[in-house]
Amino acid sequence: MNDDNHNNNNTEFMAQALTRARSVIGRTSPRPPVGAVVVLDGTVVGAGATDPPFGPHAEVNALLQAGEMARGADLYVTLEPCCVAIHTPPCTHAILEAGIRRVVVATLDPNPLVAGRGMAQLREAGIEVVVGPGSAEAQEIIRPFSTFITRHRPHFSAKWAMTLDGKIATYTGDAYWISNDASRVWVHNFREEVDAIIIGSATARLDDPQLTVRLEPHQHWYPRTTRSGGPLRVIVSTHGDLPAHLKLLQPALAAGTCIIVGEGASPDNIDRLRSSGAEIIRAEVNQGGFIDMQTISSLLAEKGLMHVLLEGGSQLLGQAFDQRLIDQVAAFIAPRLIGGRAAPSPIGGTGLSMMKHALTLANQRSQIIDGDILIQGLIVYET
Amino acid sequence: MNDDNHNNNNTEFMAQALTRARSVIGRTSPRPPVGAVVVLDGTVVGAGATDPPFGPHAEVNALLQAGEMARGADLYVTLEPCCVAIHTPPCTHAILEAGIRRVVVATLDPNPLVAGRGMAQLREAGIEVVVGPGSAEAQEIIRPFSTFITRHRPHFSAKWAMTLDGKIATYTGDAYWISNDASRVWVHNFREEVDAIIIGSATARLDDPQLTVRLEPHQHWYPRTTRSGGPLRVIVSTHGDLPAHLKLLQPALAAGTCIIVGEGASPDNIDRLRSSGAEIIRAEVNQGGFIDMQTISSLLAEKGLMHVLLEGGSQLLGQAFDQRLIDQVAAFIAPRLIGGRAAPSPIGGTGLSMMKHALTLANQRSQIIDGDILIQGLIVYET
Repeated sequence: MNDDNHNNNNTEFMAQALTRARSVIGRTSPRPPVGAVVVLDGTVVGAGATDPPFGPHAEVNALLQAGEMARGADLYVTLEPCCVAIHTPPCTHAILEAGIRRVVVATLDPNPLVAGRGMAQLREAGIEVVVGPGSAEAQEIIRPFSTFITRHRPHFSAKWAMTLDGKIATYTGDAYWISNDASRVWVHNFREEVDAIIIGSATARLDDPQLTVRLEPHQHWYPRTTRSGGPLRVIVSTHGDLPAHLKLLQPALAAGTCIIVGEGASPDNIDRLRSSGAEIIRAEVNQGGFIDMQTISSLLAEKGLMHVLLEGGSQLLGQAFDQRLIDQVAAFIAPRLIGGRAAPSPIGGTGLSMMKHALTLANQRSQIIDGDILIQGLIVYET
Repeated sequence: MNDDNHNNNNTEFMAQALTRARSVIGRTSPRPPVGAVVVLDGTVVGAGATDPPFGPHAEVNALLQAGEMARGADLYVTLEPCCVAIHTPPCTHAILEAGIRRVVVATLDPNPLVAGRGMAQLREAGIEVVVGPGSAEAQEIIRPFSTFITRHRPHFSAKWAMTLDGKIATYTGDAYWISNDASRVWVHNFREEVDAIIIGSATARLDDPQLTVRLEPHQHWYPRTTRSGGPLRVIVSTHGDLPAHLKLLQPALAAGTCIIVGEGASPDNIDRLRSSGAEIIRAEVNQGGFIDMQTISSLLAEKGLMHVLLEGGSQLLGQAFDQRLIDQVAAFIAPRLIGGRAAPSPIGGTGLSMMKHALTLANQRSQIIDGDILIQGLIVYET
C-alpha cells in the first residue's frame, strides 16, 4: 500500500471513528466521548464508542467486537489510548493483547501531564503509531473534557438569543419569542450535548422555562444512556425564594432539577423547595451577598459535570463573564427591533472598561437559520 | 425582433440606465436619482442621469446627447417620466418632441397622487410604454425619495456597530473600535450616499467623531456635485453646551456642520457655537425637556434632505425608534464580548413592551465583512 492510499484510508476510517465519538457526546461525563474502529485488510471488523462512566472505553469495545480479527489489524481511535488504569484497565494493554499492528490516533490526551505517554507505550511495544488525521474535529468533540481536565472545572457554553438591537427581553421582561422555530430546534439539539443547563433566579421567574430537550420524534438523536430526561437543570437562587408554581418545581421536572441556594436561605424556603422533589445544594455567599460563579463552578465540577450550558439571564452571564468562565458562545441574532434603555442585553456584570480589551472569538462560525443569524465561537483565555 | 429579444434588451439597457441612476445617489436631493439611455437599432445613442437640483432630468440629458438620433429610438428610464413642470419642463413633452417611439420604465412615480400619469400621457400620444424591467432595483435606488414624497420627511437610516453581546460602547463609554477596518470603509461608502449624518450630544462628546467620508484615493466613488465635503453633519444639543475642542467645531469641519439647539439654550452658548462657523438652528423643546425627533425630522425636511443617517447614540436612536422614524437599518455585529450591565445597547428610548410587537425587517440582507456580520433591512410601518 503506498502512502497516498494510506492517507486516504486514514481519513476515511478516522471519519468513521469520529462519527462513533459524536454519537455519545453528552453521555460520557466525566470521561471524554471517544470513537474507535478496527480495520483488517481494508474492512471494518470492529467499532465502538465510550460506554457510560465506569464502562469500557471505545478501543476496548471495538476490539471486543473484532475478536480474533483484531490480530494484525489497524486501530483508528479519536483520542490517544489511556495508559493508566482508573476505572478500567488501561487501553494500551488491551491493544497489545489483541495483537493490533498499527494505531492511528486523531489527537493526544489533552492533559499535558499524560499527553504522549499512551503513544510512547505502544511504540515501545513495537506498534506503529500515526497521530494527526481528523485532529481538529477530534479536539472539538472532546473540548468540554479538555477544559474539565486542564482547568478542573466544567466547560461553560453560553447561549443567548437577542434582537438586532442587542436585547434579550423587552423592558417589561418579555422574551417570547426572540428567535424563530428553527433556531429553537437548534438549541434543543445543543441541550442534548451538555450535562447541565443553568439559569439565574430572575430568568426562572420571568421566563418560567422547562429547560428540557424537546425534539420532534422524527428528528434523529441518540438516546441518553447515563440518565433519563435530558441534562440536569440547575437554578441559582440565593434566597431560595422561587415561587412554587414554576414549571421546574413540578414533580415531573423537579426530579432532574438542582437548586443552588445561599447559606443564608431560610429553612422554610429550603424545605418548600426540597418538597418539590428538587435537589438542594447550599453554597457560600460572597461579600456582595450572592453566590459567586466560581463557587458554582466548583460545585458543578464536583458533580462530574463536564459541559454546562449557561442559558441566562444577563446577571448570571455577567458574573460568568467577569470571572472568565465563558468558554464558548452560541449567540442568535433575530432580525427584529424592540428598543428600550431598560431592556437587558445578554451579558451584564461589570464588564470590561476598554473596547480594545474585548474578548474575541476563535473558531468563529456564522450561519443563517431561517433568517436568524447564529454566531458561534470559543473564548480563548491566556493562561 | 421577437419577444424574447425584446425582453433581453429591456433588461440589458435598463441595467445601463440603473447604473447611471446609481452614479448620482446622494447628489440629487430633493429630486430622485434617475438614469436614462436612448437606444436606436440596438445601439446606445444617448445616456444621462439627474443633474443637481434645478438642472435637467435624466431623460432630458439622455435625449440631448442623442440629438436627432432620438427620432424613432427607444428610451429606457429608471423612473416614470414626470408630466408636470416644477423646476424644469415636464419630461413627457421632451420625449414627444424628440420623436421617441417606445419608452421602457422601471418603476412608477412613488407619489400615489401622480403615479401612472406620465405613462398615460405618453400612451395617449401614441407612444408604446412598457413598465417593469429592473423595478426592484429602481425602487431601492429611489427609496429615500419615496419616503420623502409620501411621508413628507427624510428617509432615516440607522447605522450601528455592536459587540456580540449587544453593546455599542463599554460601561465607561469607550467605543474604539468595535467594528473592523473593512466595516468602517463600508460605512464611509454609505455616508457618500446620504444627504446628512446626525448624532446626539452624548455621542459628540464621547466619540468626538468627524463624520466625514474618508476613503482611500484608489477607491471608486462619484464626485459630489451638489456640495463639497460630504454629507451635512448635524448635532442635536438641547443646551448648546458642546465643548469647543470637538473636531466638528474646528473651522474645516464646522463649515459643513449644523447644530440643532433647544429654544432655551443660553445666548452665550449659541454665540460660542456660531463663532465656530457652524450653522445654528433653534428648535422647540418638548415637555420632557428635549428636542423631539419629530421636530428634528421636520427641520431636516425643510432643508430638502431626503436621506439622513442616524449614527447614534443610544438616546437619539431610542427617540427615533419610539417615534417610528427608523426606516432602514445597517447593523454591524463584531464577534467580541465586553459585558457590563451599564454598557449601552444601540437603541435606547422607551422601547416596545412585548416581544411579539417587535419591528421586523423587510428585504433583509446579511453578509460577513472580514469577520464582522452586517445585517441590513427596511422597517415597514403600517400606514
